[in-house]
Amino acid sequence: MKIYLYGIREDEKGYLKEWDKAHPDVEIDYTHEIFTPETAELAEGSDGVVMVQTQPYQRAALKKLQDFGISKISVRNVGLDGFNFQDLRDFGLSLTYVPVYSPNAIAEHTTSLILRLLRRVPEFDKKFANADFRWFPTIGEEINGKTVGIIGTGHIGSVVGRIMMAMGAKVIAYDIAPNPALENLGIYKETLDEVLEQSDIITIHTPLAKKDIHMIDKDAFDKMKDGAIFINAARGGLVDTDALIAALDSGKLGGAGLDVLESENDVFQKKFDSIADVKDPQFQALINRDNVIITPHTAFYTTTAVHNMIFDSLNDNLKMLQGKAPKYPVDITE
Amino acid sequence: MKIYLYGIREDEKGYLKEWDKAHPDVEIDYTHEIFTPETAELAEGSDGVVMVQTQPYQRAALKKLQDFGISKISVRNVGLDGFNFQDLRDFGLSLTYVPVYSPNAIAEHTTSLILRLLRRVPEFDKKFANADFRWFPTIGEEINGKTVGIIGTGHIGSVVGRIMMAMGAKVIAYDIAPNPALENLGIYKETLDEVLEQSDIITIHTPLAKKDIHMIDKDAFDKMKDGAIFINAARGGLVDTDALIAALDSGKLGGAGLDVLESENDVFQKKFDSIADVKDPQFQALINRDNVIITPHTAFYTTTAVHNMIFDSLNDNLKMLQGKAPKYPVDITE
Repeated sequence: MKIYLYGIREDEKGYLKEWDKAHPDVEIDYTHEIFTPETAELAEGSDGVVMVQTQPYQRAALKKLQDFGISKISVRNVGLDGFNFQDLRDFGLSLTYVPVYSPNAIAEHTTSLILRLLRRVPEFDKKFANADFRWFPTIGEEINGKTVGIIGTGHIGSVVGRIMMAMGAKVIAYDIAPNPALENLGIYKETLDEVLEQSDIITIHTPLAKKDIHMIDKDAFDKMKDGAIFINAARGGLVDTDALIAALDSGKLGGAGLDVLESENDVFQKKFDSIADVKDPQFQALINRDNVIITPHTAFYTTTAVHNMIFDSLNDNLKMLQGKAPKYPVDITE
Repeated sequence: MKIYLYGIREDEKGYLKEWDKAHPDVEIDYTHEIFTPETAELAEGSDGVVMVQTQPYQRAALKKLQDFGISKISVRNVGLDGFNFQDLRDFGLSLTYVPVYSPNAIAEHTTSLILRLLRRVPEFDKKFANADFRWFPTIGEEINGKTVGIIGTGHIGSVVGRIMMAMGAKVIAYDIAPNPALENLGIYKETLDEVLEQSDIITIHTPLAKKDIHMIDKDAFDKMKDGAIFINAARGGLVDTDALIAALDSGKLGGAGLDVLESENDVFQKKFDSIADVKDPQFQALINRDNVIITPHTAFYTTTAVHNMIFDSLNDNLKMLQGKAPKYPVDITE
């Protein structure tokens, strides 16, 4: 049995070796290249393929898999918008994905962003660099006693809720489909507005459905408490960034922790000569504020998450090859 | 009834007003000056005094309180080494203190230091300043799944334990007097060595008794896991700083978060012209490391803590004036 992997990064190799060692009966091989009609040739002789890429999966490449008698594809991430499911159906291909890499990675990063804002770390960092070790007047706030509003209480939001409760926060939440595991805690509000209006800290953990584009817009910011802290470690498109900037400018919003931005594809994962070379006006309007912390979509980026992306995708690919039911199948019928 | 306060800082005034408003029957007045034989005159006509200072409380000043018929003193902090209790006994003075301002302030700051080290925030900050928004190879670690060792499980350590458990850590602990509220969790180890040997992250939350000076010395660092993270938001003297520096130099220690330093009185609460002007060699040996985060004794510094220092001290002073038992009396008999 042989599985071929595409788009392997340096930080994935250790986990690849680890999985390989645990499965002496399975042969694995890989390339750093992504999956294209050209590189598809590399999979010849394999039984299954594992891949991840932001570029579209091309029909001509998928056709080659059929030619080679390969019918099992596993992607090691959550996003599936690079596939045309019609291609998969046409070539008799089955697909699995990894819906959750590590809820804790993102929940812990969210906690870190909240703490860094409440304790005014950007200001203390500047004072430190300036050899000023006096604490006054840079006094901080605690999560303890605050009302933390969580929008979206799935894998990630529920861990955030657990952490915030342990810190002594009052947690309130909104979800179109409340999490049964949390319902007995009495945290759910009937409407998003109640969460926006009552929270000192608001953090969003929902996927980006089309109807949820700009869920947090000018109206939403207007409803928030004066000085509220807003965290987005979910998807940039959930927030109207111009409205966010206006809420920061007016002082309505007390601070923002942003691991994602609407225009992040023009900025994140890139290296510029200097900050001034980043031409995105929203990015430029957000940085250089003591009450804004931007991280370049790194909330997920832990060894645990990368381990799970490798292990869960390989495990599911092997299950399909063995004729067993995979853990995370993708429904490609529509 | 009148209470006079010494050494009032700007950040305390709001809470002073708040307490005043809630006690219309009590008159309060204050000075920014500390309590000395000269400023003692300001208290004349008052019934009680509230103070805080790092300088010694002078016998001649305390004598004046007796002259003015004042017998109730409340300090709004925990440290009492500025008093000679014989003076208090000679002049018939009663004393209260504030033993705990806010356990959460320090527990949340400890959590923040751990997260910033595990997620390599100093490196990401440098990359960001350098317009490098790529995440590879700056991969992080999670608290989830780690073993967190807590030395000292009183007010602060127990909150740290609760937060770490909520994050999915395995918590182990050592305390000469285990906290009854935590004993059924099965976290206590018989010896400090077991905690040192088994923890991925070690955080200390004990007072500085004389016998505990350099509790964490070369032997202790040698016993730790390779790459362990060490946090000290308690007292600088608990740690042999030269041994800490050696453990960082050798790579034995994976990182350190330090809110206190042995030599902090020469550095913290001061402003220098530049970092180079800080002449303390231990401080200079610790900064400029990506795996060390130093904060200038700010773990406690939240609005909640300052509120509690004002409210608890005034409440206890008033109780004494009303002939009631104060919440935090100091035993001055020895």
